[in-house]
Amino acid sequence: MRKAFKVEFLPFRSTHSFARGTNLLDAIRKAGLPLKSTCGGKGTCGECLVRIEGGEARIRTSAALPEEVRRLGYALACQTEIEEDLTVELPRFEEQSIRTVAGSRFFEEHRDRISGVFEVNPVVRKIQVSVPAATLSDNSSDLRRLQRQIHKEKGLRCLQAEHRVLKKLAAAVREKEGEVTAILVKTGPGWTLVDLQPNPPSKNLCGLACDIGTTTVVCEIADLEDGRVLSTTTGFNQQLRCGEDVISRIDYARRPGRLQELQTLAVQTINALAEKSCREAGISSDDIYYVSVAGNTTMTHLLLGLDPRFIREEPYIPTMNLVPMVKASDLGLNVNPEARVHCAPAVGSYVGGDITAGLLSTPILRDAEKTSLFIDAGTNGELVIGNRDWLATCACSAGPAFEGGGTKCGLPAIEGAIEAVTISKSGDLAYRVIGGGKPKGLCGSGLVDLLAGLFVHGYLDRSGKLDQERAGKRLVRNGEGTGFLVEKAPRSYWGRDLILTEKDITNLIRTKGAIFSACALLLKNIGLTFDQLDAVYIAGGFGQHLDVDNAIRIGLLPDLDREKFHYLGNTSLSGAYLVLLSEKNRELVNAIAGKMTYIELNAEPGYMNEYTGSLFLPHTDIGLFPSVKKFLRPGKRLDD
Amino acid sequence: MRKAFKVEFLPFRSTHSFARGTNLLDAIRKAGLPLKSTCGGKGTCGECLVRIEGGEARIRTSAALPEEVRRLGYALACQTEIEEDLTVELPRFEEQSIRTVAGSRFFEEHRDRISGVFEVNPVVRKIQVSVPAATLSDNSSDLRRLQRQIHKEKGLRCLQAEHRVLKKLAAAVREKEGEVTAILVKTGPGWTLVDLQPNPPSKNLCGLACDIGTTTVVCEIADLEDGRVLSTTTGFNQQLRCGEDVISRIDYARRPGRLQELQTLAVQTINALAEKSCREAGISSDDIYYVSVAGNTTMTHLLLGLDPRFIREEPYIPTMNLVPMVKASDLGLNVNPEARVHCAPAVGSYVGGDITAGLLSTPILRDAEKTSLFIDAGTNGELVIGNRDWLATCACSAGPAFEGGGTKCGLPAIEGAIEAVTISKSGDLAYRVIGGGKPKGLCGSGLVDLLAGLFVHGYLDRSGKLDQERAGKRLVRNGEGTGFLVEKAPRSYWGRDLILTEKDITNLIRTKGAIFSACALLLKNIGLTFDQLDAVYIAGGFGQHLDVDNAIRIGLLPDLDREKFHYLGNTSLSGAYLVLLSEKNRELVNAIAGKMTYIELNAEPGYMNEYTGSLFLPHTDIGLFPSVKKFLRPGKRLDD
Repeated sequence: MRKAFKVEFLPFRSTHSFARGTNLLDAIRKAGLPLKSTCGGKGTCGECLVRIEGGEARIRTSAALPEEVRRLGYALACQTEIEEDLTVELPRFEEQSIRTVAGSRFFEEHRDRISGVFEVNPVVRKIQVSVPAATLSDNSSDLRRLQRQIHKEKGLRCLQAEHRVLKKLAAAVREKEGEVTAILVKTGPGWTLVDLQPNPPSKNLCGLACDIGTTTVVCEIADLEDGRVLSTTTGFNQQLRCGEDVISRIDYARRPGRLQELQTLAVQTINALAEKSCREAGISSDDIYYVSVAGNTTMTHLLLGLDPRFIREEPYIPTMNLVPMVKASDLGLNVNPEARVHCAPAVGSYVGGDITAGLLSTPILRDAEKTSLFIDAGTNGELVIGNRDWLATCACSAGPAFEGGGTKCGLPAIEGAIEAVTISKSGDLAYRVIGGGKPKGLCGSGLVDLLAGLFVHGYLDRSGKLDQERAGKRLVRNGEGTGFLVEKAPRSYWGRDLILTEKDITNLIRTKGAIFSACALLLKNIGLTFDQLDAVYIAGGFGQHLDVDNAIRIGLLPDLDREKFHYLGNTSLSGAYLVLLSEKNRELVNAIAGKMTYIELNAEPGYMNEYTGSLFLPHTDIGLFPSVKKFLRPGKRLDD
Repeated sequence: MRKAFKVEFLPFRSTHSFARGTNLLDAIRKAGLPLKSTCGGKGTCGECLVRIEGGEARIRTSAALPEEVRRLGYALACQTEIEEDLTVELPRFEEQSIRTVAGSRFFEEHRDRISGVFEVNPVVRKIQVSVPAATLSDNSSDLRRLQRQIHKEKGLRCLQAEHRVLKKLAAAVREKEGEVTAILVKTGPGWTLVDLQPNPPSKNLCGLACDIGTTTVVCEIADLEDGRVLSTTTGFNQQLRCGEDVISRIDYARRPGRLQELQTLAVQTINALAEKSCREAGISSDDIYYVSVAGNTTMTHLLLGLDPRFIREEPYIPTMNLVPMVKASDLGLNVNPEARVHCAPAVGSYVGGDITAGLLSTPILRDAEKTSLFIDAGTNGELVIGNRDWLATCACSAGPAFEGGGTKCGLPAIEGAIEAVTISKSGDLAYRVIGGGKPKGLCGSGLVDLLAGLFVHGYLDRSGKLDQERAGKRLVRNGEGTGFLVEKAPRSYWGRDLILTEKDITNLIRTKGAIFSACALLLKNIGLTFDQLDAVYIAGGFGQHLDVDNAIRIGLLPDLDREKFHYLGNTSLSGAYLVLLSEKNRELVNAIAGKMTYIELNAEPGYMNEYTGSLFLPHTDIGLFPSVKKFLRPGKRLDD
């Protein structure tokens, strides 16, 4: 019987030898490979998920590894022992990157001008009442006395009660002289009793706002009694291992069992981020009684386990736009089992709940006089033009370049990402890293700055080619082609050179080109020109701060008065949070979806022309960018 | 290693020897002991449930044996192997007795005079619509097009859809040119989509009416498209092994795990009966989209898994009277997982949903002029007096004697039960057995006939003692005391003498006494006398036909004009069925519960006096029974 076995680790292609019975997580640690695990190998956190690609391992069952995921070849490394030669795929390090911050500044900055209602009046309530004891003369049932008291003390009509709560009702109203805390959720015209707690309540009343993006997912915990954001956690969508964009995920889902896998991965992503958010916020996951999700149409379908295939087959029709309310326990979300899940409604297959929710956190819906443009540059780009009275929308396949996908040096706006770059005339490069420390890569705003800096200082020509002479010692050539050295190996987090390759640049230009050409075409379609826009609201995963000047220099944004631009960050998340806060916002976001006119760009004849023209810095039609044009004299660099 | 082991079977106290590894079901068959099994030992029907009282057996896990039941020591005999000496408790044969009949005659006989609405307009609908295909110009989602079509073709507003149905929506509307069958259930002001079927629909739309009694449970399948009853199945409540009456079940539930056991047994009882009903009706359990349950307050609590302890602690308050709607899948009922379960509401701890539902199937609520008495003599006796404008109710602890419990020769009205008895002057005894064949015992109506016959012909004195001389060769004495031989061993189903013991007689007299004294007291409380009653409606598990003359002779019913009496059979089941049939009935039964005045007999001063006076045949106050009195001359038998 052999005593040692070889294990090859993918995607690193490194092979190591281990004794029979070695724990796989220990083996990975010994091999010096990155794999997260926060439960100390107890099999409960579910973070050390790997896929066994070859060989058979002894895998202990674990509550953190659902059977349907195990069947697909996944295992928790900490629950696995090496008993023969194996090939094991580890998650890409990005899938493990998570950033949690306490609180949020968005509403301190924006609360006065959002469309959504900024009031704390959610559809879930925590109320304390004192239920009178039953007597032989008032022999009303426990439920009846509670309902009566809720109406008498709080004016709420509690018409229904969940089966789970009935089970603890008799005991609850007989403890502590009938002092109970009831959790109610609005359902139709009345309220439904979803939980009972002893008094004083041991639990908080919280909500989870979740922006489920194709690349990144953000979970935010809000206290539903005062509206405070308690914590925000960002991480990669674990579905990334099944494809980088919505189209590849839809294709992936076609094989048997794969739709279930994608649904499980979506839920696992949210559960992992929510767990961290809860820990940061100091609450229990059981305190979360309402979940507000905003995601594009494909992400929403996958979260609900709905076949997304017709989203990419003409005429591109989703199962539903307005999503019926579901219970968290039906989806497998690790929050209070009675929690309701609201998914922001879609307008169509390519304008989803991230956009309808996003609009809530812009002022667009408040004003009938002004006409605004809303740009959400996520993995898919979506645009909305309109005001309180009308809204038109379209989508474009932007690609995830500004969210950290599709480029070698890109990262979402997580800890370790460069969020701002300046290049001096002499070529010195300075940058700011989120959370400080050594850089892991660049997030969207950093990439925009870098690209603009390279263009302005003559490192790039208008077609995005590197000027090899000017780049000098920053020019890198390796097996993957030519690139610009952002930071040397010893000073980078991963100990590898941080390089912006020409391929990365091409991808970034394609992305900005797709967004700009879609703007131009949508305006043309409506019969407006850029200068008729009163405001431009920009959202997306760029990072905390997008430099609008730089975005205009590379031709991502139109060349308008700078004060018309407002960078709002992650509006999808903000919108999901606004839905948590107030019933009116839930009504509003549902109403928005019904009101928007969807324009299919692929059906527009001028589309390819517009797009091709946008594949230059800033554009082939330089007349569209007068503030950039004045620098563009022959033989002269922009920084001269 | 020993090769053979002794197994003692309880309650039979018979011990047999078996080889190691013998299957326990085979062993029971070899021992000639009765145990049902319909799946052929595959472990799927769950009928061969036994309890291992001593020793350890090897038990295979089985889907038909929930883990929580296994932990309590239960096993499926067919999945168990003998590996050491065992003591095994088999269910009492009655627990296995099941009777299934196709159709029901109740409504042919009673449809013109019930209070409930006899129309087929249930809260579940099956509709066929043709969903237009999506196009680039009509890009409404699948759900939207379906909702629009349902409204257009059927006028129904479908506002919600269950998560489970969303998963099959996209495929369903794209097959067969959009022809789909939708199942909708009324929820609040609108309808909820609970299922989709291809066209033509493969399934039926059925409902399950269930009378869950303390002793017997009846399940009835109705076609919800035309209202027809497809089959009716009667069996024992499997909770019987945990106690015969509600008080002993409530006490049983106090120990840890026992409440769960009782809930599981209730669900298993319904599932077993429903499965047989489905088979008889030729439908699938998945075709059942609505369940209407009527049971007393304790049975309803136990079915829902609610702690019943406060039902028997002063001031006797249940968790709830009006039961919130639950889903069948939440309870573990083996019907369509989206099926809604309606439980008929209670008035209080001792007047439950069996009575409110039962009133629907009487004419009491239709008339304001007449005052009627409703008697439901189940394991608990409940009485209602009133009319359309007012209703007063009370309960008495009757005991299960007329339902086959608490007597040695008693049986519910199942196949093999004697339902009618006549005794000639010369002492010849003739009887009719349900389903023909050899008798197993007597059901309520048979016991009433027998008791009255024995009394009228002088075999019993007024205190219920057997006249040993007159009984002659019918007199039996054995270890269990003195009794009257109803049928000799060879002519009885079980091959044992069928005997009515003096103890049985005492029990029957106590039961009839409790009911009669409660009637007298309730009337007194309201200020009425027996002769002011315009009608008496009698319900209960007596059997198909109750001989009113005989019931008056033994003092069970008051001595009024015979035409005032109407024997209605199982009104609880009929009421549950009426709730299935129409939304109005659901509203009506919920309204009844709120309207009834509950009178607590135990708090009445005259209670014990009334009861003691009723412990004679027919009563100590013979003046109350003039039609019986005229026969009661000294030295003269009633049949002289």
